Amino acid sequence: MSGNGYGVAANEALPCKCIAAMSGGAPLTLHTITRRPVGKKDVQISIKYAGICHSDIHQAREEWGKAIFPMVPGHEIAGEVVAVGDEVTKYKVGDKVGVGCMVDSCRNCPSCKAGDENYCQTGAIMTYNGKHKYQHCEEYNDEGGAPTYGGYSQGIVVDQNYVCKIPDGMDLAGAAPLLCAGITVYSPFMYYGLKPGMKLAVAGLGGLGAMAVLIGKAMGAEVTVLSRSPSKRDEALKELKADKFVVVTDEADAATVKSYFDFMINTIAADHDLAPYMDMLTYNGKQILVGVPPNPLSFHAFQLAVPRKTIAGSLIGGIKETQEMLDFCAKHGITCPHEVIPADPEKVNAAYERAVKSDVKYRFVIDTATFA
Amino acid sequence: MSGNGYGVAANEALPCKCIAAMSGGAPLTLHTITRRPVGKKDVQISIKYAGICHSDIHQAREEWGKAIFPMVPGHEIAGEVVAVGDEVTKYKVGDKVGVGCMVDSCRNCPSCKAGDENYCQTGAIMTYNGKHKYQHCEEYNDEGGAPTYGGYSQGIVVDQNYVCKIPDGMDLAGAAPLLCAGITVYSPFMYYGLKPGMKLAVAGLGGLGAMAVLIGKAMGAEVTVLSRSPSKRDEALKELKADKFVVVTDEADAATVKSYFDFMINTIAADHDLAPYMDMLTYNGKQILVGVPPNPLSFHAFQLAVPRKTIAGSLIGGIKETQEMLDFCAKHGITCPHEVIPADPEKVNAAYERAVKSDVKYRFVIDTATFA
Repeated sequence: MSGNGYGVAANEALPCKCIAAMSGGAPLTLHTITRRPVGKKDVQISIKYAGICHSDIHQAREEWGKAIFPMVPGHEIAGEVVAVGDEVTKYKVGDKVGVGCMVDSCRNCPSCKAGDENYCQTGAIMTYNGKHKYQHCEEYNDEGGAPTYGGYSQGIVVDQNYVCKIPDGMDLAGAAPLLCAGITVYSPFMYYGLKPGMKLAVAGLGGLGAMAVLIGKAMGAEVTVLSRSPSKRDEALKELKADKFVVVTDEADAATVKSYFDFMINTIAADHDLAPYMDMLTYNGKQILVGVPPNPLSFHAFQLAVPRKTIAGSLIGGIKETQEMLDFCAKHGITCPHEVIPADPEKVNAAYERAVKSDVKYRFVIDTATFA
Repeated sequence: MSGNGYGVAANEALPCKCIAAMSGGAPLTLHTITRRPVGKKDVQISIKYAGICHSDIHQAREEWGKAIFPMVPGHEIAGEVVAVGDEVTKYKVGDKVGVGCMVDSCRNCPSCKAGDENYCQTGAIMTYNGKHKYQHCEEYNDEGGAPTYGGYSQGIVVDQNYVCKIPDGMDLAGAAPLLCAGITVYSPFMYYGLKPGMKLAVAGLGGLGAMAVLIGKAMGAEVTVLSRSPSKRDEALKELKADKFVVVTDEADAATVKSYFDFMINTIAADHDLAPYMDMLTYNGKQILVGVPPNPLSFHAFQLAVPRKTIAGSLIGGIKETQEMLDFCAKHGITCPHEVIPADPEKVNAAYERAVKSDVKYRFVIDTATFA
């Protein structure tokens, strides 16, 4: 077993600097956690970059129900393998790897067996704000409900089955957000059948929306961004290379895409009326929701029936599919546009404020090599 | 060209007794309409039976927006060919045939070309309460917007492409409702992929629900009826041979099917809360709405995302698929359970009242040979 990247032997519990919320809504602060010793099937990762996802903010502020504190957010993790357990076959020291939203699941239910660990029927273990409950590694006892801590930290120890390979040559900072934002749009594109030549609408242009434009274009779709902000036209068309831009609140503009789209990915996380979006779908059109607005959404059944439409959901993706997504992005030269910030709690707190105002193109990424 | 069944030459316009609403909400009365002469591609049908669909009631009562009066309802039509135009190739005099919800469509749009005339993108011509607008038959001019009249009548003249063959030996009275209620459930079963062994829920046990149980069983699914009426248990299990019956308003009963169903067909036409039904779907489960409640339905996006679910719509089916459905039903010995009533406006008005109270198993069928 090789040594790790932050100063202790891999077979010992690993103290590790991190940025944490000590209670719900408190500003993030510097903190130290202990990572478990590297088990036989574990990979120890020196984290290089961690993306800031909107869901980090919701959970750190305890806006999604009772949370576990101290909380170390971060489930868009890119780093380098610094130690591996004796039975690890998939990774070796030096490999560039990523960890997304999950670090374990039951491995036995139909969802897990189908490679959809994200839909584990007894509950996937989230990368942070979760508790271990499966005992897959003999060296440590998960049954005790040890809390999970995320990527705003120097390192992490994860079972090899929940780690993905970051393809050679891919920029690690731009790769990190793919582990959540990338797979969140890639998975429904694959499952619900986005095909070359289809007319794809991307509703909302934040981190998910930007990834949907880039991946949708690479999949051969004609991509239209739907936004309420006319100011986003240039970035959509020139920076992200979308084919069209429609201001949904402009009736004349919206009328140009009535009954137009085969596929829509709706990334809007704020409450909104589904009706105008439903009217933009054509025969057999599908609207996939990947944003989760706080309140229920409504629609009229007749809008679904005529002409035959679908509203469906999707939540991140499985491990195998996440690897496919990374390989697809590498092949097409896609990473997530981002702004790097240092591993300084003040800077992360400020980034949270800006992210809430959508003042970022399109993800903040913490450079975790800069821990003081 | 052969003679017709109700007393005039087929190349003349055909007076024809019918039961009509003369204005919105007025009781139905006896009336006489004129059918067009039989064009080269037309089939003239002596109607033997016409089913009473709930949508007949809504339209006769002008509950679905402005309607066309006089209105002759009826889009579940079974009868016998009594004359054919010179260029008719698909039918001959004496054939048993059916007509469903449409009598024409544009024939050129992607939906029509795919055999989904029901989703015609320039508008299918409904069997009644519609107006012709396509000129597919040189002998008559549809452009003038001649109104369509439905099946509560002695006869009808329809382009051969919008007529289906009723398989030999199938009971005509029990076949009539298949033209709407049967195809309305069969089409989404096929399109959205109901497979043998799947756990199918049928929400609501009216005419559509009964057909969904019979066809779902014949397709090899395990069928559970979801109802608010404990009194329907026996008919569901013993008469229709459903596998299970769950009272949705009984929490303990509903809990037995939490995260259980792969496929749900929701036939409920009254306003209702989708949430408990969504909770009964498992991973990759689909809920297909074929009832159209008056007000919008709502759901929480999180219910769709975890674990990956779909809500989708469907409206009747195309002509080719309607023929497949009839052939499937004939093969499996399925017709619609029904109660025959005579072609007497008083009896039809009384049937409407009973249908509104769901006091029928499961369709009223008018014996149109009994016109006075």
